[in-house]
Amino acid sequence: MRVQVAIIGSGPAGLFLGQILSRAGIETLIIEQRSKEYVLGRIRAGVLEQGTVDLLDEIGAGRRMHEQGLVHDGIELCFDGQRHRIDLKALSGGKSVMVYGQTEVTHDLMDAREAAGYASVYEAEQVRVHDFDTDHPKVTYRKDGVEHVVECDFIAGCDGFHGVSRASVPASAIKTYEKIYPFGWLGILSETPPVSDELIYSNHERGFALCSMRSHTRSRYYVQCPLDDKVENWSDERFWDELRSRLDAEAAASLVTGPSIEKSIAPLRSFVAEPMRFGRLFLAGDAAHIVPPTGAKGLNLAVSDVRYLSDAIIRHYGGDRQGIDTYSERCLDRVWKAVRFSWWMTSLMHKFPENGDFGQKIQHAELGYLVGSEAASTALAENYVGLPY
Amino acid sequence: MRVQVAIIGSGPAGLFLGQILSRAGIETLIIEQRSKEYVLGRIRAGVLEQGTVDLLDEIGAGRRMHEQGLVHDGIELCFDGQRHRIDLKALSGGKSVMVYGQTEVTHDLMDAREAAGYASVYEAEQVRVHDFDTDHPKVTYRKDGVEHVVECDFIAGCDGFHGVSRASVPASAIKTYEKIYPFGWLGILSETPPVSDELIYSNHERGFALCSMRSHTRSRYYVQCPLDDKVENWSDERFWDELRSRLDAEAAASLVTGPSIEKSIAPLRSFVAEPMRFGRLFLAGDAAHIVPPTGAKGLNLAVSDVRYLSDAIIRHYGGDRQGIDTYSERCLDRVWKAVRFSWWMTSLMHKFPENGDFGQKIQHAELGYLVGSEAASTALAENYVGLPY
Repeated sequence: MRVQVAIIGSGPAGLFLGQILSRAGIETLIIEQRSKEYVLGRIRAGVLEQGTVDLLDEIGAGRRMHEQGLVHDGIELCFDGQRHRIDLKALSGGKSVMVYGQTEVTHDLMDAREAAGYASVYEAEQVRVHDFDTDHPKVTYRKDGVEHVVECDFIAGCDGFHGVSRASVPASAIKTYEKIYPFGWLGILSETPPVSDELIYSNHERGFALCSMRSHTRSRYYVQCPLDDKVENWSDERFWDELRSRLDAEAAASLVTGPSIEKSIAPLRSFVAEPMRFGRLFLAGDAAHIVPPTGAKGLNLAVSDVRYLSDAIIRHYGGDRQGIDTYSERCLDRVWKAVRFSWWMTSLMHKFPENGDFGQKIQHAELGYLVGSEAASTALAENYVGLPY
Repeated sequence: MRVQVAIIGSGPAGLFLGQILSRAGIETLIIEQRSKEYVLGRIRAGVLEQGTVDLLDEIGAGRRMHEQGLVHDGIELCFDGQRHRIDLKALSGGKSVMVYGQTEVTHDLMDAREAAGYASVYEAEQVRVHDFDTDHPKVTYRKDGVEHVVECDFIAGCDGFHGVSRASVPASAIKTYEKIYPFGWLGILSETPPVSDELIYSNHERGFALCSMRSHTRSRYYVQCPLDDKVENWSDERFWDELRSRLDAEAAASLVTGPSIEKSIAPLRSFVAEPMRFGRLFLAGDAAHIVPPTGAKGLNLAVSDVRYLSDAIIRHYGGDRQGIDTYSERCLDRVWKAVRFSWWMTSLMHKFPENGDFGQKIQHAELGYLVGSEAASTALAENYVGLPY
């Protein structure tokens, strides 16, 4: 078969891209190695920048988000037993963020794609990308024992950090940058009302904690833990005690606990691959870059790539090659700014024993400065709601 | 003999303090182990915050500074071969900095002290502080073979990092924080016109460089160098070549070179001792804290301490003990913010090979963000001109 754009991966990056291109009259096929249920079962972040909200609206998939999502105009930073609010909306000139799970975004995008009748293949085995350094790239995969060949103009590698797209690029053509943080996040989901209306990021001598949420009745909490820790070491009771100990007295006292419905430990990593285009293969989202979850940039950065990529491809079919040629550069400028912000916020909020007492005092001074300076608070806010395109 | 306040050290901290207190009718004696000529021969930084300029004016010692000093309304950050101006004045609501050497400040303060007839002892040997945990502290020293005892109400330890004041505090009463940076600054003075009207801070793959000045005809330049490097390895010619290689093309082409009149290598260190008060002994300036020279906070932080200390002592003689009791806390809040800023600017501008390619990309992203964001530029500016008291 032949399509104009073959999209590898049915996560948010692939689905957003597919929807934009298809609506622009460009034929796409999404090829996903997992089942639809598997993709929808993955629990991911849930804070959408204004630009991500806007894009979901633009492609007509924003209805449920506006019904169920929670608009947040601020976040709280907790240190020294005190919470300090950062008024994102006032500081960013009116922007806010939307708390709405990535899983829900994926769901809405899949529904929109199905409703429009655009094609997706799930459970595709042995997905391979070919000849992307020529004008005739191809994707091959097996499905139900049959080998399929998809000829196309472009391949969009939206298949995540472990996907086949980046792995198919010769090592000599790609440069990677990586930082592994010396701790993980132990996270739980529970059917309990969130401790606060807004997210609380806490810097505590016992380690970082984050109070987040999925809805008014479902909370998502995290505590910094050693990299080699195991979920089995953490009873629900131990988790709640640890979380409570890292919050201010008021939050600790009002924390509603309950059984966890999910509990897992995730490592924290910063990763960037350069460039993001290899002939007619484009990487987008986690396939090209990973950020630690602090600051909630992962999904939003995938959306940023997709904006540039869809623009480039649409312009290409209009006879303008410039978008294609500048794709990597345009993406990476914004990617590195978000990688920088995520690294900074991670560095500011976590306990790094290897930085010693001096490092802790520096964190403390920065937090005090940050909440006391309108300029510094504005810098945080403008990054948190999303830098301009 | 007896004075109200014995001041150890005749650097800027001691001289500023002596001048403020003496003008308030409080009897002071400055005790300095070096000769006046030695103190005036030390070459130090030369960028004064607005608050430092104001204080020199307040105590009537600002005339020569206004005649000879250079008011700078901005600085330039150089990276990727381009210079980007940070408009300090516009971003900070009208504040600027004054380029005027610390040596000159010291000179003017000594002149003012002498003109007013306030007492200083130079070349005092075996200076010792005693009984500062009682209400009857003493300072002893030898001069011309005679032992002197100075009884006083308070001792101000303004005798620098290596001075006797901090060293006299029991180790158990003091906590120190330190970071040693893995490089030094090789600096030269030369009788050449500065390459630019404003300071240029350059982040270059070969390492940091700073173009500073003392006057329209005297330049001060620095390049980052290995900690174990030796001045003997650096001919003037090698220095100029290295500096030129770290600047943008325009600056490199217009750099006027000439013989160095001073050349030295200085290590970079962040250091803070807490608390800054021990009974009736107060530490001020370098005796309590050291910052790397990036951002020019050292002298200005000494002035900040002196403002709090003079206020505390004057209030004490007015019957209000609160300034004394809160001295350490008030100082340290501002100290840590300046230590944080100096650490940040040092981290941003220097080459840290141990942070690898990822660290360099983060620096690059931060620099790009910094010069493109009004909020981030404002945060830099408000720190550079000096945070409010």
